[in-house]
Amino acid sequence: MSSSHFQLSLPDWVQPYVASLPEQIQDVSARMQVAIALARYNVDNGTGGPFGAAIFEQNSGRLAAAGMNLVVGKHCSLAHAEMVAIMMAQSALKTHDLGRAAGAPYQLVSSTEPCAMCLGAIPWSGVQSLVCGANDADARAVGFDEGEKPSDWQGGYQRRGIAVECGVCGEDAARVLRDYAASGGEIYNSGA
Amino acid sequence: MSSSHFQLSLPDWVQPYVASLPEQIQDVSARMQVAIALARYNVDNGTGGPFGAAIFEQNSGRLAAAGMNLVVGKHCSLAHAEMVAIMMAQSALKTHDLGRAAGAPYQLVSSTEPCAMCLGAIPWSGVQSLVCGANDADARAVGFDEGEKPSDWQGGYQRRGIAVECGVCGEDAARVLRDYAASGGEIYNSGA
Repeated sequence: MSSSHFQLSLPDWVQPYVASLPEQIQDVSARMQVAIALARYNVDNGTGGPFGAAIFEQNSGRLAAAGMNLVVGKHCSLAHAEMVAIMMAQSALKTHDLGRAAGAPYQLVSSTEPCAMCLGAIPWSGVQSLVCGANDADARAVGFDEGEKPSDWQGGYQRRGIAVECGVCGEDAARVLRDYAASGGEIYNSGA
Repeated sequence: MSSSHFQLSLPDWVQPYVASLPEQIQDVSARMQVAIALARYNVDNGTGGPFGAAIFEQNSGRLAAAGMNLVVGKHCSLAHAEMVAIMMAQSALKTHDLGRAAGAPYQLVSSTEPCAMCLGAIPWSGVQSLVCGANDADARAVGFDEGEKPSDWQGGYQRRGIAVECGVCGEDAARVLRDYAASGGEIYNSGA
């Protein structure tokens, strides 16, 4: 066996961007614009696909973690934006359950509706709210494979106590996907 | 934001165990016994939950990566056995797509049928075969939350070209789950 160690670092452009943000962001659209900016800067800097995510302390509006798609560059098919944000938040807070961490409840804001993997992962993370920008159809329209999702995943989340809000700044978020595809960005999950 | 780095190392007991294995393991039951042993040693060493996984070069039978549940100790709700094995294999082979890596096709052998997150993740990994030991009902019977899975996930996998074989050494694998629960092991995903 050749590896017993895994590591993942955010790209260098992330920290200056995050440092430029207000300390607290209350408005859900403003939180979504952070996720969308993470998606766009990720593409512009050539560090990954057109997906961004951010975890906020829901009440204070403080940013707990940023994530972006790092699949190809970091050699990790699990490194979707939502997963990266969850890993970083839990690592910083030293808990596998954000629902019991200081600062809870936490809200995950994702520039695009999560794929099947991320939808499965979010309930294990302890976040208590999910906000999505672009929808599933927007991602599939440019060729991304979103996987097989439960037919009523939003109902399932609500039964678990996870609030869901979709379509927040959806057009802005979808534009990042379309621009990426139009510029010839790699659609690595095409199943091809 | 407090973290831009994530790392995950396998427990110290893993390398000596892996080094004790034959260089090539052809029989699927023998491969499953590796996954089951990883689950049991993980519990015995107090390093995580009763789940193990291993990725093999399907044709040669060489082990590419080992994984085990490291959720609580590593502060990472994503660190299920299958996810850890995928991260380690892709990191070692420096690719996000095991389907295109030297040694392909790869086979993921999991001591228990994957949860909803892992079921979503496996098609993104590039493995072309999944072998399961204990089944979904075995995991739920001791209190683990397996999440909302697509009703015909096996059919979905087959349509993607991922072969599935379930119930391999299922009783041996289920015994690890039951022993863990009987000894008072933490059922951290109970949704409680």
